[in-house]
Amino acid sequence: MGAVKTKRMPRAVREQQMLDAAVRIFGQRGYMAASMDEIAELAGVSKPLVYLYLNSKEDLFTACIRREAKALVEAVRAGVRPDLPSDRQLWEGLGAFFAHTARNPDAWAVLHLQARTHGEPFAAEVAAMREEIVAFVTQLILTGAREAHHDPDLPEREVAGLAEALVGAAESLAAWANATPGITARQAAATMMNFAWAGLGDLIAGQPWAPPEEEQTGAQAG
Amino acid sequence: MGAVKTKRMPRAVREQQMLDAAVRIFGQRGYMAASMDEIAELAGVSKPLVYLYLNSKEDLFTACIRREAKALVEAVRAGVRPDLPSDRQLWEGLGAFFAHTARNPDAWAVLHLQARTHGEPFAAEVAAMREEIVAFVTQLILTGAREAHHDPDLPEREVAGLAEALVGAAESLAAWANATPGITARQAAATMMNFAWAGLGDLIAGQPWAPPEEEQTGAQAG
Repeated sequence: MGAVKTKRMPRAVREQQMLDAAVRIFGQRGYMAASMDEIAELAGVSKPLVYLYLNSKEDLFTACIRREAKALVEAVRAGVRPDLPSDRQLWEGLGAFFAHTARNPDAWAVLHLQARTHGEPFAAEVAAMREEIVAFVTQLILTGAREAHHDPDLPEREVAGLAEALVGAAESLAAWANATPGITARQAAATMMNFAWAGLGDLIAGQPWAPPEEEQTGAQAG
Repeated sequence: MGAVKTKRMPRAVREQQMLDAAVRIFGQRGYMAASMDEIAELAGVSKPLVYLYLNSKEDLFTACIRREAKALVEAVRAGVRPDLPSDRQLWEGLGAFFAHTARNPDAWAVLHLQARTHGEPFAAEVAAMREEIVAFVTQLILTGAREAHHDPDLPEREVAGLAEALVGAAESLAAWANATPGITARQAAATMMNFAWAGLGDLIAGQPWAPPEEEQTGAQAG
């Protein structure tokens, strides 16, 4: 693939390479300190080509945010089997979320830190992704409440608040997990599941949420 | 000191007035759009006096963050009576947190949004406050676990993660509550307590955390 240098490679492929490099540099250096020179060099292209394809540092950053937001939402959705009970769905969704953010720490730094710390247009991009995830979690809680056949006393407003709380907790925990050596994605997902499903009351009483047995033997990886 | 037209008011008092005005303008307009002219006008002083006292827009913003971070931490600490059981302490702490953020929406916008969206030095100020709150919550969970006399299987790492999750959830919920008409501070605190203490599992099964009875009759206010 990486042939002659820049020739013969479809534009779409080359653009992805530029975005790969940009996510890495933005995530590690921060938006302000990131240089277009360094991004072009890491992508193995000339700086004018980056500008030709992606127009400006702002547009390049926006393209990174959009791509990574889409990838994160897709990873979470793909991780969830909608035929399972809602606690299993939440467990799988959290597992997929923490696995994705652990595998793509630069992308997560771009979404969680950089995109929110450099002004409105970027923050709005992330807000759109966040709303999608909040809507997903809201549905999950509503479905779970319906499953419980309990005519559960959970007004829609309350559910909206719970979904906001859950997403905020997961974001905070992902940032902590990525910054704390030795915390695996699975541990972070388990902590989050304990917190969100069992609650501190049960946890403190020694009654954590238990992951399904089939999985306990199987996937130990982080 | 503050010669000419601004005589006779101690510098400390006048500085607080400037900070009051600055928090309002920064919180409502955003850091970038906020103008020093508008801040001076709202404070009822001349712009040169603002610069004389607080040096620059950056320094003024930093002073706002420090003052509001300190006020928030103090409000939470003051709301908690350390002799109560840990679920009551958490309830009171959350009540104090949401009451403070609801009463001071501009200050909360400065801390939660503005300070984190305009670069490192400001973000570091907020990170310090956040660490203090996380440490406070960590202690609360540890104490609760000890109270339960259960030799609870909650390693320190897990507790650190739980505290991060709880703080992230509360931050997210406070932003949502302030942006959602008709959500009172008490409702937000109850949602958060349900989420964090009872957990979604119990909630969905129709078993929310119940606030202590004495309070249900008393404080209904938001």
